[in-house]
Amino acid sequence: MEQKKLVEEITSMEEDFAKWYTDVVKKAELIDYSSVRGCMVLRPYGYAIWENIQKILDGMFKATGHQNVYMPMFIPESLLQKEKDHVEGFAPEVAWVTEGGGQKLEERLCVRPTSETLFCEHYKNIIHSYRDLPKLYNQWCSVVRWEKTTRPFLRTMEFLWQEGHTMHETAAEAIAETERMLGVYADFCENSLAIPVLRGKKTEKEKFAGAEATYCIEAMMHDGKALQAGTSHYFGDGFAHAFDITFQGRDNKPQYPFQTSWGMTTRLIGAIIMTHGDNSGLVLPPAVAPVQVMVVPVAQHKPGVTEKAQALKEEISAYCRADIDLGDNSPGWKFAQHEMRGVPLRLEIGPKDMEKGQCVLVRRDTREKLFVPLEGLREAIERLMREIHDNLIARARENCERRTHAAVSMEELIALANGENGYIKAMWCGDRACEDALKEKAGITSRCIPFEQEPLSDRCVCCGKPARHLVYWGKAY
Amino acid sequence: MEQKKLVEEITSMEEDFAKWYTDVVKKAELIDYSSVRGCMVLRPYGYAIWENIQKILDGMFKATGHQNVYMPMFIPESLLQKEKDHVEGFAPEVAWVTEGGGQKLEERLCVRPTSETLFCEHYKNIIHSYRDLPKLYNQWCSVVRWEKTTRPFLRTMEFLWQEGHTMHETAAEAIAETERMLGVYADFCENSLAIPVLRGKKTEKEKFAGAEATYCIEAMMHDGKALQAGTSHYFGDGFAHAFDITFQGRDNKPQYPFQTSWGMTTRLIGAIIMTHGDNSGLVLPPAVAPVQVMVVPVAQHKPGVTEKAQALKEEISAYCRADIDLGDNSPGWKFAQHEMRGVPLRLEIGPKDMEKGQCVLVRRDTREKLFVPLEGLREAIERLMREIHDNLIARARENCERRTHAAVSMEELIALANGENGYIKAMWCGDRACEDALKEKAGITSRCIPFEQEPLSDRCVCCGKPARHLVYWGKAY
Repeated sequence: MEQKKLVEEITSMEEDFAKWYTDVVKKAELIDYSSVRGCMVLRPYGYAIWENIQKILDGMFKATGHQNVYMPMFIPESLLQKEKDHVEGFAPEVAWVTEGGGQKLEERLCVRPTSETLFCEHYKNIIHSYRDLPKLYNQWCSVVRWEKTTRPFLRTMEFLWQEGHTMHETAAEAIAETERMLGVYADFCENSLAIPVLRGKKTEKEKFAGAEATYCIEAMMHDGKALQAGTSHYFGDGFAHAFDITFQGRDNKPQYPFQTSWGMTTRLIGAIIMTHGDNSGLVLPPAVAPVQVMVVPVAQHKPGVTEKAQALKEEISAYCRADIDLGDNSPGWKFAQHEMRGVPLRLEIGPKDMEKGQCVLVRRDTREKLFVPLEGLREAIERLMREIHDNLIARARENCERRTHAAVSMEELIALANGENGYIKAMWCGDRACEDALKEKAGITSRCIPFEQEPLSDRCVCCGKPARHLVYWGKAY
Repeated sequence: MEQKKLVEEITSMEEDFAKWYTDVVKKAELIDYSSVRGCMVLRPYGYAIWENIQKILDGMFKATGHQNVYMPMFIPESLLQKEKDHVEGFAPEVAWVTEGGGQKLEERLCVRPTSETLFCEHYKNIIHSYRDLPKLYNQWCSVVRWEKTTRPFLRTMEFLWQEGHTMHETAAEAIAETERMLGVYADFCENSLAIPVLRGKKTEKEKFAGAEATYCIEAMMHDGKALQAGTSHYFGDGFAHAFDITFQGRDNKPQYPFQTSWGMTTRLIGAIIMTHGDNSGLVLPPAVAPVQVMVVPVAQHKPGVTEKAQALKEEISAYCRADIDLGDNSPGWKFAQHEMRGVPLRLEIGPKDMEKGQCVLVRRDTREKLFVPLEGLREAIERLMREIHDNLIARARENCERRTHAAVSMEELIALANGENGYIKAMWCGDRACEDALKEKAGITSRCIPFEQEPLSDRCVCCGKPARHLVYWGKAY
């Protein structure tokens, strides 16, 4: 009864997906709103997910030879303007500091929307010879982009992210880095977040301001909209020219280095929610769940139950992130509460379990209930963590496949676009005009040109001219 | 010869302490300057020290029940103005965002100089009952204060820090938290940074804007100037009144909660440099050194040397942060380089050592050279790490004690203030006028009212009226 009531507070996703999403982020206490337009408060539970994401990703960056640095949060206007395409892309959406220390500034400072310009300024100081290359830097920070409409995690004025910025001796090496880091991102999404991703390249229209090429990973949400989960950019030597960064090459001649950047943000938390969540709330992938196993004593007033539950919590904390709920609420209320917060496993222990030398494990993803002998607890928990992960990614793959359709004519494409959301695979000639036409006529945008191409037809779905690429189209966050 | 030359690039601290400091931060590659006035680039080596500081401190915060959150980086002007003393203290030194997304803002946003106001706004939303207390939150972020003169780490316009913000049911509990976190800070400085600290309370003049009381830890630098290494503030219920934060008490009546905040910043890295550094450069305490043991092969062209050095590096990486220098430079150059960068231990291995089944360990702090049998390497390294830590803190204590003097008259005090820098202990009546007079006549400010009081005299050193406190006075960063 109590359980039902708690869950009823969350709008069902079939009724209103956007409201379901907002209910989940609020009721699971991931965020709070603030009086700062478009900015959110990351509450302990939400921030703990981000800390786990950071820890794993940071380890992957370090394992691939990257070092962390920290750049200033301000960019002087003149510095932002050095690379023409970059400033054109970002200037409309930046916040400007115009006063400081009680005085009007001579030059406006923008709050960083991304830090290519600052990294370039620094790289100019420290790169002199081919021996100084590659430079493989990353920073964890927050950035600001003046978004008109905002939604928690998905699009906020300020967000947390990491931005990798690297410099290389050759174009080939920089392209390899761009691809390698996209691979790191895809591995992370699939192996840690249980989110399957599509890997590909953005069209010219959708690429990053100032980049030669933008690679991306796209994920399919419950509602059939795609979400760009990470991007990796290859810049060529464009910024190096703009910032006059040269190094003495192996041939003793001055050369321009080749550059990449790549980023992932707190929007990953939005992706987790919309990939795995259900009408009872959050469902967290074990690798990043702040609490992997929540111990809930049953009949905790009975002698020894609380002590046993506490002892179990201590014991399992050696190999998983465990917590215990010793609050005054009923077990039923607690069950619903921790399900709503997406805890992967619940461990129940009561007097009868104690008699039998067992406990009950309940999976969040399937709600399956298992009676597990205490001596086999570690193996059971570790196995279930893997199974939950595997089940989550399998379900997400299934959703993605079910929502992926091919179109070889505009009629087909428009019919698909008017149906259930999802990816529409269609051939494209490469012209911006056709890309714009699909947006106008079918309300869909290019998600990416996938690395794995399949020749659906040899004609552009829009204009009928020779096709150059298979493109995944869809609606996106 | 090479070694000499490298070291000569660093100005000696006796010649020019400020220049010595700047040389060290630049040559050890801790920072780079940027075109953003008063902001610095934290380079990989400098940031790695900060990461180690973060890791240890964050563990201590979590062990004492604190949770991390993230608040917006902007504070609307109306929010900053809610607490009168607070805004008076901070308004003159903030940066204002006045334009965003191409438009002039209706209300200015200040870039956070500290986040009491944002935490209060959030606490108002989430604190309703005594059951919601205490709230023990912390955040890691950067803040901006518009400083006129800046110096790397010590005073920069933007700096990285953590800020703890807690709310409690009773004043006693909040005061206990304020003291507890000061204790955590002192433990961290002494046990991780090998920096001995003086614990005390700030005078009214020196306390934090809006606080009822500010506790602090002060450290003594090589040049006899004090450095405030951390502060912990007790706010009473002042902000709670200003922000109208109330909760239903155990007596069912609405009550105002009691608040604390506490912070430590990247200036700790400045404290490390000026506490332990010498004329050869940095000396890093083992607990936060990015590299604890640098392996340098000697005669690395000889067969098997590089392989052996590499194997040793892998082996010791199991229990310490180790790195290896396989570069083309001479061993002498490498020795000087890693000494300059403050690596606590150097491990040399050459053909003769290999024959004898030993290696050479060289301490950075004493330059002592030890021949260590390879089978006893782990014990030797772990013992030496402890000994280096103990020696560093002992040397720092000695410097502090040598520079601490007592004065019972103004003549004595002025004579001491005109001599070598250090702490001057003197009694104080508690009047602001006397505090101002000491600044004017002797150029010293109150560092703190130490928790450990000693009655030097019963008269104020300045006015001769009855003394209320022993105060440590001095020059400070």
